[in-house]
Amino acid sequence: MSLFDYADTERAAPDGPLVRVRLVVAYDGTDFHGFAAQPAVPTIAGQLTAGLERVLGHSVEIVGAGRTDRGVHAWGQVVSFDASRAALTRVGLVALGRGLNQLCGPDIVVREVDEVPGEFSARFSARSRRYRYTIINRPVADPFLRRYAWWIPGPLSTRSMQAAGDALIGEHDFSSFCRRPRGPLRAEVSLVRRVLDTGWSQPEDGLLLYEIEASSFCHQMVRSIVGTLVAMGAGDRRPGDMLSILHSRDRSAAAQIAPPHGLCLWKVQY
Amino acid sequence: MSLFDYADTERAAPDGPLVRVRLVVAYDGTDFHGFAAQPAVPTIAGQLTAGLERVLGHSVEIVGAGRTDRGVHAWGQVVSFDASRAALTRVGLVALGRGLNQLCGPDIVVREVDEVPGEFSARFSARSRRYRYTIINRPVADPFLRRYAWWIPGPLSTRSMQAAGDALIGEHDFSSFCRRPRGPLRAEVSLVRRVLDTGWSQPEDGLLLYEIEASSFCHQMVRSIVGTLVAMGAGDRRPGDMLSILHSRDRSAAAQIAPPHGLCLWKVQY
Repeated sequence: MSLFDYADTERAAPDGPLVRVRLVVAYDGTDFHGFAAQPAVPTIAGQLTAGLERVLGHSVEIVGAGRTDRGVHAWGQVVSFDASRAALTRVGLVALGRGLNQLCGPDIVVREVDEVPGEFSARFSARSRRYRYTIINRPVADPFLRRYAWWIPGPLSTRSMQAAGDALIGEHDFSSFCRRPRGPLRAEVSLVRRVLDTGWSQPEDGLLLYEIEASSFCHQMVRSIVGTLVAMGAGDRRPGDMLSILHSRDRSAAAQIAPPHGLCLWKVQY
Repeated sequence: MSLFDYADTERAAPDGPLVRVRLVVAYDGTDFHGFAAQPAVPTIAGQLTAGLERVLGHSVEIVGAGRTDRGVHAWGQVVSFDASRAALTRVGLVALGRGLNQLCGPDIVVREVDEVPGEFSARFSARSRRYRYTIINRPVADPFLRRYAWWIPGPLSTRSMQAAGDALIGEHDFSSFCRRPRGPLRAEVSLVRRVLDTGWSQPEDGLLLYEIEASSFCHQMVRSIVGTLVAMGAGDRRPGDMLSILHSRDRSAAAQIAPPHGLCLWKVQY
């Protein structure tokens, strides 16, 4: 079902005292133009906002922990917004979650709904974000994972990819792995980020999971890192070059970025 | 991509000596009108036939082990057909599989390609078929399994469902669990089938797998059995009634059939 019909409805601002609410949201991003709301195309924020406004009966402004790109998924996206105390009492937290899932499902699923202190922001209160990237490394593709994993039929050395990934731990300027924002402030935007954890696991034969946790990420950072690690795992790049690519602060030093459909915003820490 | 443009191309029959070929095929059935070829709608057999004819350059008639319904998936569907020896030698088995995957993927994936003896038939040589039905039994849905699992938020007793399923083992008239074929021979078609194995497993919390193996299945049999077992697991039906439902030979005695998207043709034994 589409919520477009409601999205353009002008709703009054929330009346009286406000309550801050936190949602944990999972979504299959395949059919969406990313998280951030945009006019005339389906987005996660657009659908959630339209659903919330429909259930609460007043206008809502949502804040997300991570702006996932077009085609990227989430298991643990976190969203915060203000509801009017009166509307929330009338609806109830449980019915709010159910109503949202009826309106936004089955692609978007609200996993948790909580009332939080008024100073909580899904974006600014977050201490770190963890992304997971899924790769199917088998000669034959799997039709059931085609939306959620990057299929790489040729051999990959996980040892090379692990060694190369370890070089990212700590605080670095990630200019080599990020799409620099456009606009007049282009040169002044900092692309320094702190990577807290990075590693590969192989829960079953031919299924490779890469997870990376950082204070925050710049645009296309995980996909660019995964693309470069895979080039090293495939033997097209030398794993020892990770630090020199990082230090070059030159995007052309990195390999091609990995496709969006293997990427998932896994968990946000507060 | 669509193969419709090729599907209507008239191709010559295969020339000279023939070779029988066996494929093992996995597919996401979500966007197909079932296995069996039908005019003007996408079907698994239609896509595979068009792909094979394109690669081999002659007309092909395929036989499948199981006619999966609209929206039903397969991991181990088996297909057989005759190729001209000359065409197959020119293309090669490996390139045949790759070509098919390029033409029919990513929804349809050919997992194995083999040359088999001329008397092999994917349908008539099969000793048994095994289906798997996947249920997500958690309060909150999972957007990544929405195409492949039936989501049931309320509690289910797997013990009741296992006990009721055990009653199906052996040879029975499955009229209560099958959609009887239409047409003049309606009353004369036998719906007697031999169930070899049936059982539930729970590989992780809230994920329920039902597997059933039988010599063959009649139309909608697995979905009807699963619908009835789930009604028993939910407490809407008594698990002890399975045999009396079976013996009634009356379709109205069974519960509503389970939705197609949880069902997968898992394996065919020869």
